[in-house]
Order: sequence, then structure tokens, then C-alpha cells
Amino acid sequence: MLPTTSESPPFTLTRASHVALAVTDLQKSRDFYRDVIGLVVTAETDDVVYLRGLEEAVHHSLVLERANEARVQTVGFRVRRDADIVAAERYFTERGVWHRRLEKPHQGPTLQFRDAVGSHIELTSSMDVVPRKMQKFDEFVGGAPQRLDHFQLVTHDVQSATNFWADLGMRMSEYTAKDGTDELWGTWMEVKGNTHDLVFTNGRGPRLHHFAYAIPDASALIQAADVVGAQGFGSEIDRGPGRHGISNALFLYVRDPDQHRIELFTTHYQFIDLETPPIRWDVSNPRRAQLWGMPASRRWFFEASEFPDEPVREPLLKATPATLEDYLGVH
Amino acid sequence: MLPTTSESPPFTLTRASHVALAVTDLQKSRDFYRDVIGLVVTAETDDVVYLRGLEEAVHHSLVLERANEARVQTVGFRVRRDADIVAAERYFTERGVWHRRLEKPHQGPTLQFRDAVGSHIELTSSMDVVPRKMQKFDEFVGGAPQRLDHFQLVTHDVQSATNFWADLGMRMSEYTAKDGTDELWGTWMEVKGNTHDLVFTNGRGPRLHHFAYAIPDASALIQAADVVGAQGFGSEIDRGPGRHGISNALFLYVRDPDQHRIELFTTHYQFIDLETPPIRWDVSNPRRAQLWGMPASRRWFFEASEFPDEPVREPLLKATPATLEDYLGVH
Amino acid sequence: MLPTTSESPPFTLTRASHVALAVTDLQKSRDFYRDVIGLVVTAETDDVVYLRGLEEAVHHSLVLERANEARVQTVGFRVRRDADIVAAERYFTERGVWHRRLEKPHQGPTLQFRDAVGSHIELTSSMDVVPRKMQKFDEFVGGAPQRLDHFQLVTHDVQSATNFWADLGMRMSEYTAKDGTDELWGTWMEVKGNTHDLVFTNGRGPRLHHFAYAIPDASALIQAADVVGAQGFGSEIDRGPGRHGISNALFLYVRDPDQHRIELFTTHYQFIDLETPPIRWDVSNPRRAQLWGMPASRRWFFEASEFPDEPVREPLLKATPATLEDYLGVH
Amino acid sequence: MLPTTSESPPFTLTRASHVALAVTDLQKSRDFYRDVIGLVVTAETDDVVYLRGLEEAVHHSLVLERANEARVQTVGFRVRRDADIVAAERYFTERGVWHRRLEKPHQGPTLQFRDAVGSHIELTSSMDVVPRKMQKFDEFVGGAPQRLDHFQLVTHDVQSATNFWADLGMRMSEYTAKDGTDELWGTWMEVKGNTHDLVFTNGRGPRLHHFAYAIPDASALIQAADVVGAQGFGSEIDRGPGRHGISNALFLYVRDPDQHRIELFTTHYQFIDLETPPIRWDVSNPRRAQLWGMPASRRWFFEASEFPDEPVREPLLKATPATLEDYLGVH
Repeated sequence: MLPTTSESPPFTLTRASHVALAVTDLQKSRDFYRDVIGLVVTAETDDVVYLRGLEEAVHHSLVLERANEARVQTVGFRVRRDADIVAAERYFTERGVWHRRLEKPHQGPTLQFRDAVGSHIELTSSMDVVPRKMQKFDEFVGGAPQRLDHFQLVTHDVQSATNFWADLGMRMSEYTAKDGTDELWGTWMEVKGNTHDLVFTNGRGPRLHHFAYAIPDASALIQAADVVGAQGFGSEIDRGPGRHGISNALFLYVRDPDQHRIELFTTHYQFIDLETPPIRWDVSNPRRAQLWGMPASRRWFFEASEFPDEPVREPLLKATPATLEDYLGVH
Repeated sequence: MLPTTSESPPFTLTRASHVALAVTDLQKSRDFYRDVIGLVVTAETDDVVYLRGLEEAVHHSLVLERANEARVQTVGFRVRRDADIVAAERYFTERGVWHRRLEKPHQGPTLQFRDAVGSHIELTSSMDVVPRKMQKFDEFVGGAPQRLDHFQLVTHDVQSATNFWADLGMRMSEYTAKDGTDELWGTWMEVKGNTHDLVFTNGRGPRLHHFAYAIPDASALIQAADVVGAQGFGSEIDRGPGRHGISNALFLYVRDPDQHRIELFTTHYQFIDLETPPIRWDVSNPRRAQLWGMPASRRWFFEASEFPDEPVREPLLKATPATLEDYLGVH
Repeated sequence: MLPTTSESPPFTLTRASHVALAVTDLQKSRDFYRDVIGLVVTAETDDVVYLRGLEEAVHHSLVLERANEARVQTVGFRVRRDADIVAAERYFTERGVWHRRLEKPHQGPTLQFRDAVGSHIELTSSMDVVPRKMQKFDEFVGGAPQRLDHFQLVTHDVQSATNFWADLGMRMSEYTAKDGTDELWGTWMEVKGNTHDLVFTNGRGPRLHHFAYAIPDASALIQAADVVGAQGFGSEIDRGPGRHGISNALFLYVRDPDQHRIELFTTHYQFIDLETPPIRWDVSNPRRAQLWGMPASRRWFFEASEFPDEPVREPLLKATPATLEDYLGVH
Repeated sequence: MLPTTSESPPFTLTRASHVALAVTDLQKSRDFYRDVIGLVVTAETDDVVYLRGLEEAVHHSLVLERANEARVQTVGFRVRRDADIVAAERYFTERGVWHRRLEKPHQGPTLQFRDAVGSHIELTSSMDVVPRKMQKFDEFVGGAPQRLDHFQLVTHDVQSATNFWADLGMRMSEYTAKDGTDELWGTWMEVKGNTHDLVFTNGRGPRLHHFAYAIPDASALIQAADVVGAQGFGSEIDRGPGRHGISNALFLYVRDPDQHRIELFTTHYQFIDLETPPIRWDVSNPRRAQLWGMPASRRWFFEASEFPDEPVREPLLKATPATLEDYLGVH
């Protein structure tokens, strides 16, 4: 069933903001994101490293936290103003959504909550401001990631997840549905005016499939892959380069030392006007997954990062062997 | 004086939408925008040609109208909903701003008005939906312009223009000011979450300096220049390639057969968070104009498209010879 | 055993020149090479289509011939002068190498022969001159292939093949050998001063694995893939994009309607100085095959085009299951 | 008069090899070529710095020598074998061409001579071999210059210069001539199979106008300009980006701290086949200089590096004011 985006959401979401990862070897992970991926280290302590994209004026969009087990701690979104944090608190209380206020260094008022399918989400209304590095071209590394762009979550219940976020004002730009029905298998949702800030796909969840940084262009994507290869991480590319049918993204997926997955991508399109309907893709349409590109690896399909202490549920929708084969793209 | 963006604007602007040009040879202009620039012709009649960018789902972002004199007829913005047109009408009536309702083919409710400095503006809330061509890679031409992005207007009074649009909810991302003062010489304003939708610079106005289409990347920019050259329009590039300090745009400016100016550019950065202050550039800072690039031609500085029957006024701020020299970048 | 390049070869080879393919649907193949790959049609008759790369001043580098069965008719090289054809004829006669003179339209004196491992080769000393299209940027299609660059042949006996061509003046730039030995598994040989004009790899042969056109850069490679995808040939990419360890090529392999394989690639390096030794790669080194890139498909490894009436022999060197697994890169 | 390339030159030239520059601030120049341009420092002493391009296996292609005055010490070419140095010595003796043997560190047998128009040239047959860095993508800087490619010399007598080098086996690929005549104003000559290794243009000479490194592509060219700008050398670009009509090069010219000029360029085409005639450009053809691009600066036209103790002569061919205007491209 297609979701209805709220015309007057309870508070104003503005964009995907940051992700915090629990990592088992902090230095190794920092080196990976700085030297292989090309993020900027804003600050680091013995236990935490804060990084950001080259054009970002915010203190961090990626937080690495020393831990015993690899987990995704939280997935963060921005709201417009401090008052939106208060409004969110009230809304979640009314709806019985688990939430709590947090003090987070370098962030303004911050609220944590669990969405309808168990994803651990964090909202904040501001961050410490730092200089944009977008014109420090002489400091660019690898694919020169400019900014955090979106998250893809695996969920056992795409429909519930989608409804929850549509109520918060997110709008669906594209989706996959079982042929001849509106049974949702995947939804691409946005709030910042282009293709996606948050994606849900069907599977064992809640888990973070990947977080994505926007890179400048196709040349940067190849340069990213070349640097990944030169640094000895070539086999950690588990999909790409290729061109998704959905969203038109040119993509490269790389696993970090803890097997968290980062996507480097380019070629968003603008999605602002209300008269434009979302693009529908039948699950059976092979061009959905990719216009071109070698088949994704099995681990791209089956592996993802779990949230701490959050049980993973089996998907409500089951792929028949035939569609799984197709889904996997391994012929 | 820095403008204050209205927190509750009278209606909701969403983005730069379209521009209508009066052209003296309709076929020649159509061929230029289709075969040299690479726009898609959506529809054409004996007197009008409608074009759009490759990723655009709207009927038109560029309208060419047969005329005896080259003029810019109107500069168009989108509002969120039909109700915003009504709200705009009410607001302009209250403020004594000249305006009128129009019936425009392929557009929803449409309102025309003159802004505080005489620019002819059109608002509309929707357009006919057409297919996005962004994955028809085999039909791409030249720089493969994806979408209309922003306008730059020359005005005799940057401060008044800026205040007018800040009241409508536009936010300043960057600006130039006389050293040691807040005397505004140029303002970059946005509403869609990246660097600019509307730019005002000091000079004889109101005139349209250029309208800009976003292209994919640096390779596309060079490809655009190569096709411009191959089609015999090489001498109609009046600035670029180069990298603006302001806005970080990589740019190429080309004159059409009537000397209207189109910019092809890439490398916007995201500008959403409210805690991020606008970037200030002193007029005396040469990196403001460009980080690198050969000097712009004189015609880039002095020529622009006039609105029909709209008197052009001398600028309130006068450049001293020294700063003009600097402004022109011709050393 | 490493080959010894002749210091005074019997005649002067200059470069890989052209390839003639027997195709089962002439129009379909022409459309593929013109509209999907982007070659220029120089001339066509009912039975033959001649194509060339955008920068080539020669009449053809690819010849499509109508036939009942898909075959590679011949693989062509250029010699410096007409006198070299005479010298080649004399040399082959002395050595008992099968050869014959041919009249080929649009070619100068032409000599056909079978090399030491049964490959069907054609030499010619000149061709009809046609205009280079390299500055017709407005006519570029897809990856904008500039020129035929090299051939890769599968052979049952890499050592003999390599010796044969080294005697003709070809020089080895890189090679793969069984660990700890000089048992040659693959040899990259050049005569025009960069990485390769002719490659031999171990397997069932003689067969043409692919012919390669040089494209401008990484952006062109992605554009090529995008056009391949947009034209519905996405699943005919059987390897790439990826970066070979050997030769440093950035590559994309596509199958034509008869399953002949074309490589589009970029990033040759110069190889002229005699003091520079060839680069050796152990067969066990996985970076040899690719620095990065998803695993090649099985068909990339096992399928290739046969020469007419030429028996295919089993390779002299047998991969053990372990090294085959590695060779295939399918882990 | 068009030159006749010798079919049996006295010795075998193979390519442009290296250039030695006298610089007044060694550290500053080294930093410029390493951090702004992106060359690799192979070795350095108190008085000399040796650099090379990323793909080069030779010890140096650029030598910086501490000096009191900025000069170009010598322009270097490679010959095939040591025997070619001996043959060159004999040839120059017979012709009365000034020459002498030199011992140069890291170079094989080396011979210095003055060509017909006074240019200081050095020939060598080998160099110390060092590792190619072409796959160290994580060490690439700026435009990632891959290899030294060619030289452009200003001479008072293009015809004599061209004849001299044609006798040594160089072949003209393109040239400019006065309309309706064969009066040579500029000649592009090659020996390595693509557009040029050595260019002569009419003017006050002998002087080195520029030496050129090949970069990967258009993206690298923009990246080069961005790094040049970010490092504060934006105003030292004295021409480009633009596309030459002649040779089809996409170019960027930058001045070093001593005002020596380096070109970063891409898009050579192959020039091997003998039946292909050189491309002629009338001096009056504006597309000759550039297909597109802003006008070159005056200093690009008039400034160049002198050889030590070599008098500079006025050109034999004088531009009339009209053609100078055109020649300068400043309209």
C-alpha cells in the first residue's frame, strides 16, 4: 500500500545527518575512513573518532566508537530547530514510541528513539560548526566524499517502516512492489529534495545495510576504487561499480575493517515538486537493481550491521526461490 | 546590512523553475539549446518552443518565444501548492506589489509580479508531468544539462532586492561586501537547500545576467565546451572554464544567438542547517571571483538581458576605478 | 622461458590494425557497433560494413562480414612500408609459415598468414585515408572509442606464440608465470611503444578473446556502460568496470550480438626504453588479474571467437583445481 | 616548404626525455613541482632535485638545478641504444654541429649539441630504472602527471629548425603556414607515434616556451587547476583550460616560481601510418589556436625561458599588425 506523506508533520526533519558505528579496532577504522575513503578527521579521543565529508560544515557525520563488538549504534537525522526536538518528544510520547533525551558532545539538543521496526534513530537540531574543506582540493583523498547523504535499512516489515516515516513527512520517490500489487518490497524516501534520505528494503531486520556519502562524479568513483585497491582493500568492494535502475545512482560499496558497509555514489536527481509521482519498479524487473554492472556478491545481499541489543526478525514477505534468484542477480 | 530570512514566509517558495526568453530567430535558438547545449524539446508551436533538462519531470524549464527584440520575458519560481499562489496574491496586494494572475499553457495556477527592484517574476505551483530522461544516456548531447538550477540578476540596489526575497523565505548562503562594512555588493540566496536559487549583483538593472543549468561533472563541462566549439560557437563562451571562489561552482558561460547567457555549472554544496552562517567575501578578495580561470571577458561583466518595457537604472553603489579594475579581473 | 625480441626483425611491424568478424545478422551488428559502442561507419555494402574509431584516419579498423556462423576471420597488423610486405613474404617462405597474398578493398598490399599457434593474421602496409573525427565532439556516441589498440588471443601454447612474435620484433612488457619458474601463462607484447598490441593467454586455442578500442578516460568508460545499459545490453557486459593489475588498464568488456567480445579501456602507459624490464606477475598473485573489480563472469574466462576451419587445441599447461579457482577469481 | 623526413636517419631518436631547469630557489621550485603539479621526487641533493612522472620508470624527466638566474639548461631526447650516441657524435662531427660528450649522473652515455637554431639539446640512451608509481593511486597529487611528453621551442627560423629535425627522423604531424603558401610558422613533429615530441613556433628564439606532461584526462586537468588554485597559484595559469585546434590537446599552462612554463595536457592522437598526411592550418584560421577557450594572456605569447649564454634572435617572419592581433587572439 502506498504511504501518504503527512502534509503537516509533527516536527520538521531536514536530512540524514550522522551515523555512529561501534568498531573493534579504532585506529584501523579511523585509518580506513581517512586514508582509503577520504573523510576528514575533525577530532579524536582515546575512544571516539569524529569524521566528516569534505564540504560539510558540521562537526561530524560519522562517529567511530571503540567497542568489543561491531554494531551500528545509531542512525542520525537533523531537525530544523530546537523546538522540533521538543515537538518530537511530545509526539513520540503520545504515540508510545520509545525515546529519551541524550547529551551528545558537539551536538545540540538530541533525542533518541526506536522507529516502528526497531531501528535506533537519533535526532538533533544543530552541531558545532567547522570549516568546509570543499576548496582544499590539495587535501582531497580517494573519491573525495563530500557529505553524508542517506541510509539504507533492512527491515522485516517495509510497509510499517514506510508508514512510520511518511507520518514524519518523508516522501517516497521510488519503490519496488510485487508485480500487479502494491505489496511494498523496498521504499526510497526523501525529505531534502532529492532521491533519498532513507531507504527500507525487505529482509532480516532491523539492520543497517549501508550509509552513503555523495562523491563528485564518475571519475571520483573510479579514483575511489583505485585508492581502495591501492591500499589493499580491493576485495572489500562487495558491489560495483554499477548503475542502479532505482534512483539512477552510480555506486560503489565497500566494507570497512568491521564489515560495516559504506556506499560512495553520485548522480542524485532533484525531487521537489508535489505533482511528480514516485517511480514504481516491479520486483520482477531486472533493470530495477541495475541498468548495468556485474552481479552483486552474496554478502552484499545478506550481510548488514545490527543495532545493539535489538533482536533481528525474519521478514514478513518471503521470496520464492525463483524471485530470490532474481533478487540476488546470480544467474 | 545582512538580511533576516523570514521564519514564517507568507507562502512557500521551493525552487527556481523556468525562464522565458524572447528570441529573434526561433529555429536558430531552438537548434542552439537542443544541439549545442543539449536540452530536450518537450513541445513546439510556430511561436513557442518548450525545453527541459534531462532529469526534469516538468514540461519546461526554458521557453523560447518568437519576438522582434531579444528580451527576458520572465524568470520563474515554483511554490509548493496552489494555496501558495493565493497566499502570494494576498501578500502582494497587502504590500502594494504589482502582480496579476495568468493562464499559462502546461502550468498550474500562475502569478506574475515585479520584485522590489523591477525584476519580472512568475510563480507557479505545478506543471504538466513528462518522463525524466536521466537514464536515456544514449540521447545525451554535449554537457547533458540535467535541470534548471538558478538565476543571476543584475540590480541597481542589491540591498533592497535581498531584503525583498529574504522576506519571502530565501536564505543567504554567501555574499560580497565592501571591506570593513556590510554594504552588500552581491548576494547568493537559496531556498532548495544548496548554494543558490537566486543571485543579485550590483550594476545596471534589472537585467538577467544568466540562467544556469546543472551538469553532471567536470567531464561534462569539458564535453559541453567541446561541443560548443565543434558547432562553431567557441567564441560565444564569454567566461570559463573556471572555478568561482563564491559558491565553489565550476563554470562555463555561453551566449545564445540573441546573446542571452546560459551558465553550465557543477559542484553545488548542501546548505540546509540553520546554524551555518553565510560565507562572507570582501570585494577586494580576488579569490572571490575565481580560484582559478582566465579573466572574464568585458562583455561578461557588462552585458545582460533586459526585461520588456522595464527601465534600467544606474547602480546605487559606484565602483571606484580601482575596485572596478579588480571587479573586472582584467589586470 | 623469457623470449628474446629480435633486434633486426625481418620486416617492420608498427601496430595492431584491424579485425574482421563474421557475423550472422549484419544490420544488427552494425547497429551495435555504431549506436552502442560508438564506432563510425565508413562504408557499407550488402555484405560488408567497415567501421573505424573516432580519431582514426584509416578506412577501417573493424570489418563486419555477413556469414552463417560467427567467426573471427582475421586479426590485422600494419607494417611500415610496401617493402615490408615483400620482406614478410620472403621470411614466411623461408620459415615454412603458411601465407598468401590477398587483394583487399581499401587496403594496400596485404598478406595473410598463420602464426605458430594457428592464429589467422593479416598484414597490410596502408589503407585508404579518411578524415579523423576526433574534433567532431558533437558526433561522439557512448564511450567515444578513439582507435583500435590491441588483441588478446587464447592459445594452447603461450611459449611458442610468444617466441614467434618476438622474432618479428614484438617486445614483452608484462607477463604471468608459474610461481618460481619462467613457465609463461600469459604474455603482453608491444610494438608501438605502449603496453600491448598483442596478448597471449593460456587456454583452448587459437581463439580471439577480445579486440580492444582505446577510449578517452574513466568518464567515457562509465558513459559507455550507461549507453550499453540504456540500449538494453547491460547483461552483455561480462567483465568490468575494473582495473587490471597487469597493464594498469581500466576495462569494460562487452559481448556483441554474435558474442564476439570488445574491450573498451583506458590508461596505457608508455613502454619505449630498452633498459626497462618487463613486469612479472606470479600466477598466484590475485592483484595480477585486477587491483579491484567484481569477479569476472565464467563466460569471460571460457568463451572466445574461433577462426574459420581452424581446430581448437587443448592447452599444454593445465591449471590444477586450486589455481583454476584462483584463475577464475570466483571465491 | 614542407620538410622531408629522413627514411634512414643517422641515429634512432625515440622520444622526448627530460628537461633541466636552472631555478633561483630550489626548495620553492621542488615544492611547486611536487605539491602543486604532482611530480614524484626521485632524489635530491643540496643543488639538484630530480623528478619524474607517476608512470615513468626512468630516474628523472625534470631536473631542477640551483642557480642565480632562471634558465633552461637543456632539453633532452632519448635514443634507442648506446650505439646511437656514437652515431650521433659522428653525424654531428661530419655536419659541423657543435657537440660534446657529458657524464651525467643517473644517465647512460650522454651527448650535448646545439641544433640548427641554437637550442641546447641533450641525447641519452638510458637512465637508472626506478619503480613506476602508476598504480600508487593513493599517492597521486593534483593532475597526476604521468610522463614527460613533448617540448615547444620558440625559434627565429621555423623552416631551418624543422629541416634539421626532419633529417634526424622526426615527422611533421601538423603545421601552420601563411595562407596560400608553404611558409612555415609552426611545426608539430613527432617520433614516438603520436602528435608531437617537439614543436617549433615563430618568434624570438631560441627559447623554451614550455615542456609538457601528459595527464590522464579532462577530470585530472580540472583537478590540476583546482589544486593550483588551492595552493595559491591560480594567477600563474597563463592559458587554459582550452582545446587547441592543432593537435586536439586539452591544455592548461602554468608558470613555476621562476616563470618557466609547464603544460598539463591530454588527448593525443596516434600518428604512425606513413600514408597519413600532416594536417595543415592556415595562419588566418582562428580555430587553429583553439576550438574554444578564453584568449591566452599576453605573457603566454611573449614570455619563454632562455638557454644560458645563447643569444636570442629576432624572428625571420614578421607578423603584420593585423595578423599579430589574430595571432594573439586578443580581440
